[in-house]
Amino acid sequence: MSTIKDFYENSVSYDNEQIFVQGWIRNYRFQKKIFFINLNDGTYLKDLQIVCKENITVDFNNIKEKLQIGASIYVKGHFIMTSKADQPFELLASKIVVLGTSSHKYPIQPKKHSRAFLRQLTHLRTRTKLFGAIFRIRSSVCQIIHNFFHQEGFFYIQTPIITSGDCEGAGELFQVTTLDLNQIPLDENLHVDYQNDFFGKKTFLTVSGQLEAEALALSLNKVYTFGPTFRAEKSHTSRHISEFWMIEPEMAFYNLQQNMELAQKMLQNVIQKCLEQNTQDLEFLQQHIEPGLIERLKNVAYLKTFPQITYYEALEILLKSNVKFENKLFYGVDFASEHEKFLTEVYFKKPVFIINWPIRIKAFYMKNNSDNKTVAAMDLLVPKVGELIGGSQREENLDVLITKMKDFNINIEELEWYLDLRRFGSCVHSGFGIGLERLLIYMTGIDNIRDVISFPRVNK
Amino acid sequence: MSTIKDFYENSVSYDNEQIFVQGWIRNYRFQKKIFFINLNDGTYLKDLQIVCKENITVDFNNIKEKLQIGASIYVKGHFIMTSKADQPFELLASKIVVLGTSSHKYPIQPKKHSRAFLRQLTHLRTRTKLFGAIFRIRSSVCQIIHNFFHQEGFFYIQTPIITSGDCEGAGELFQVTTLDLNQIPLDENLHVDYQNDFFGKKTFLTVSGQLEAEALALSLNKVYTFGPTFRAEKSHTSRHISEFWMIEPEMAFYNLQQNMELAQKMLQNVIQKCLEQNTQDLEFLQQHIEPGLIERLKNVAYLKTFPQITYYEALEILLKSNVKFENKLFYGVDFASEHEKFLTEVYFKKPVFIINWPIRIKAFYMKNNSDNKTVAAMDLLVPKVGELIGGSQREENLDVLITKMKDFNINIEELEWYLDLRRFGSCVHSGFGIGLERLLIYMTGIDNIRDVISFPRVNK
Repeated sequence: MSTIKDFYENSVSYDNEQIFVQGWIRNYRFQKKIFFINLNDGTYLKDLQIVCKENITVDFNNIKEKLQIGASIYVKGHFIMTSKADQPFELLASKIVVLGTSSHKYPIQPKKHSRAFLRQLTHLRTRTKLFGAIFRIRSSVCQIIHNFFHQEGFFYIQTPIITSGDCEGAGELFQVTTLDLNQIPLDENLHVDYQNDFFGKKTFLTVSGQLEAEALALSLNKVYTFGPTFRAEKSHTSRHISEFWMIEPEMAFYNLQQNMELAQKMLQNVIQKCLEQNTQDLEFLQQHIEPGLIERLKNVAYLKTFPQITYYEALEILLKSNVKFENKLFYGVDFASEHEKFLTEVYFKKPVFIINWPIRIKAFYMKNNSDNKTVAAMDLLVPKVGELIGGSQREENLDVLITKMKDFNINIEELEWYLDLRRFGSCVHSGFGIGLERLLIYMTGIDNIRDVISFPRVNK
Repeated sequence: MSTIKDFYENSVSYDNEQIFVQGWIRNYRFQKKIFFINLNDGTYLKDLQIVCKENITVDFNNIKEKLQIGASIYVKGHFIMTSKADQPFELLASKIVVLGTSSHKYPIQPKKHSRAFLRQLTHLRTRTKLFGAIFRIRSSVCQIIHNFFHQEGFFYIQTPIITSGDCEGAGELFQVTTLDLNQIPLDENLHVDYQNDFFGKKTFLTVSGQLEAEALALSLNKVYTFGPTFRAEKSHTSRHISEFWMIEPEMAFYNLQQNMELAQKMLQNVIQKCLEQNTQDLEFLQQHIEPGLIERLKNVAYLKTFPQITYYEALEILLKSNVKFENKLFYGVDFASEHEKFLTEVYFKKPVFIINWPIRIKAFYMKNNSDNKTVAAMDLLVPKVGELIGGSQREENLDVLITKMKDFNINIEELEWYLDLRRFGSCVHSGFGIGLERLLIYMTGIDNIRDVISFPRVNK
C-alpha cells in the first residue's frame, strides 16, 4: 500500500489513479455538500487532503457522524493533481471506512499545544506535526550514522549494559540487583552480601562502553557502539536525562588528529544527509521552533576544517573577553556551559575543537602529552549546545597507564583485562563519544532533551 | 591507509605498489636469511603474508628479536602478486616498526584454543580467526537489518530500558535502584519506601519495548526497535543469557499474514546479504564449526514461502509422530525445544510458521481470534535454533483488551496510556520480535549464545 510520503514524492505517477490509503484524521471541515479531511499516516509531515462529495462518497451521511479528530480511517478514491501550490493534489473519496473511532476526549486537537503539555502524553505526542518531525529526524540521524560508519569500514559492536563498576568516575550510578530489598542478605560485618546477588557482585548500569570498545578496536580495527547509557544525576535542567543513547567509535592506529577529522566528517555527513532526507521536517522546525535553523546547519555542513585551539588558548580567549562569567576562570578549571557558548557562539561563531586539556579534569585513560600536564583530549563545541563530542587518544603505554590509574584511584585489579590491551600488541588508538540526544537538539533546534527522546526517564 | 580487506578485495590495483600496513602478528616463521609474518588487522579473515629478507629489510636483526605473536607492527613494503592460489599476493617488507610488543604470556597462541578457554578471555578472543569471523558477521547482520527496515519505510525508534513494570509477565526482572542497600528506607508498614528511590517508584530493566513501540507505530506507521533487553533467569544453558539484543518491528495496518510476510522477507534478506558480505567468514565457520552451514543458509534464502500451520495442526503432527518426547503433549501446552526441533528439522526440514496459539499460553496483548480460544500469534521455528521469531497481531478492540488484561492480572491503571491507543484511532496492527543472538546462532552455526555476544552477562 502506498503511503502519503509516496504521494508527495512521486505525485505525478499517481495522477488519475484509483488509490487507497489509511491514516489518522488530523482535521476536517464541512461545507454544504462537501467535506474535507486532512489525513496523516505518520510517514510524512504533510497531510493528504481527502475530498468527500455527497453524490460520490456512498455512505456520506453515515460516515459524517463518525468522523472525529484522531480517528483512523481507510479511504479509497481518485488521486487528482490540482493547480494549487499549497495543495498540489487531493484524493476524491469514493469510499471511507472508519477503522478506529476517537472522541471529544482525544487530547491532541488541531490547535497549538505546549510542549510541556505534550510531555505528559508521550504515547500520543508523535501524532502532532512537531513530534512527528522530530522522531522522523531522529530515525534518519541514526540511520545516517550507521551508514557512515559502515562505509568507513567500522564494525558495529554492542558493549555491556550491566557492568561491575564505574570505571570512568562519570557520576552517579544506577544499581542493578535481583536481591529482595525487603530482605537484604548481610555478611558477617552486617554489610550487604553480594554473593547472593545475581552476578555474585555489585553491578550497575553502564555510563560508557568505551573500555570494552577499546578491546574490540584492538582486534577488529575500527568499531563503534550505538546504545543506551545511564546517569543517576538528580538534575532537573533541560539538558539532563537519566537514560540516553551514545555513539562511541574507537579506532586502532588513530591519533588525536585523525580522531578529530573523523568526528568532523561524521557530523558533517549527518547534517548533509539529514538536510536532504528531512527537508520538510526541518523546514517545519525552522518555521515553528528556530528561525534560521537550516542556514545554521548549512553553514557547518561544508566548512573545510573546524578550528582547533588548545585548552590554554581557550582559557586566554575567555580571560581576555571582558565578559563577566558567573563561573571563575583559572588554569585547570573545567569550562562551564557559559564559557563553551562564548567560545563557539560569540568568538568563533562555528564549531571549534578544544584540545590538550589539563590531566586532572579528564579521565584516567586519556593519553598524557609530553608536557606531562595535559592529555591528548578533544572536545568539540558547537553553537546551540556547547559540548557535542568528547574524545581522546588513549594512553597506550602500560607503565604510564598504571601510574595514572593509581593517581585517579582506579581499581586496577578490576581492570587487569584492560591492561592486557597494553601488554599485548598495544598501539596508538583513539575514539570519541557523541550523545544522540544532544546531536538531536543541535539538528532540530529543540531546547529540551525530553522532547527528542520518545519516553524520557527523569528523576522524580 | 589501506586495510588487509582492501588488499584482498582489490589486489590487482595494489600490484607492484609501495604500501604500508599496520596490524597484529598472528604467526611467523624464520628461515635462514628470510622470515615470514602472518599479519592481521581485524578487517578480514585472512592474514597478509609479510616477507622479510635480510638484504632488504633494514633492521632485520634488531627487529627479529622483538617479533612475538600478538605484537602490533607497522610495515612498509612492496606489494607483489604471486602465482600461488592460497597466497595470491605478499608484501616484501622494506621497513618494520614494532608498535606494541607482546610476550610469551600472550594467551592466544597459533594453535587451537577451546571456546570455553576463550570465554575467559573475552577482551582478547576477537583476535582469533573464529571470533573475528563471528563479530564481523554480527556487525553485518545488524547493518543489514537496519538497512532492510529503512528501505521498507520503517522508522528506527528507541524504547525505554528502565521501565516500571513487567508488562509482559516475561519472567524474572532486574531491579534498578539508587537506594543505598545498606540503609533501605522503610514506610509505615516496614516495606521499602520507593518514594525515596530515583524515580519515586520501583523500576526494572525492560524485557521488551513492544508496548511503547505500539504507541509509536500508531502515529509514525512502521517502526522498529533495536536495543538491549534483560532476563534475570538463573539458567545455565547454552541458550540463555541475561542481557541480549532484540529487534522489534511494529506496523500499523498490518494483519498477521502481512506480519509473517515481513518476517520471512527480513530473514531472507539477512541471509542473502550476509552470504554476499561475509563469504570468507562463513566459509571458515563451515570448515571449523558446522559442515554444510552455507548450504543450510542458501536453502532458506530463496524459499518462496515458509509453510504455515496452526498450533492444532502442529500438535497433531507431534502426536502422530510416534516419537517419545520427554515433555507431555496435550492441547494448551507450550511446545518444548524438542517439539520445535522435530517440527522444523525432522518434519518440515525448513522454517515453519506456527499460528493461532491457545490464548492462555500467549501474552495478553495478542489479538483474540473469532473462535475465542486462540490468538492471532505466530512463532517462526527454524532448523538449528527452534523458535527464532515470535509475533502477533495486537488486540485493537478496547473492550476485549480490558477483559484480557483482567484475565491475565495485568495492572490496568499502569497501562491506561496503552489503552488510549485503542480509545483514539485504534487500528489493526502487528509486530514481532527477533533476538539478535539467536539469529547469530542460526547464521554462524555456533551453539553457545555466549560466543556470539562480545561480553556475555550470565548468572554466577
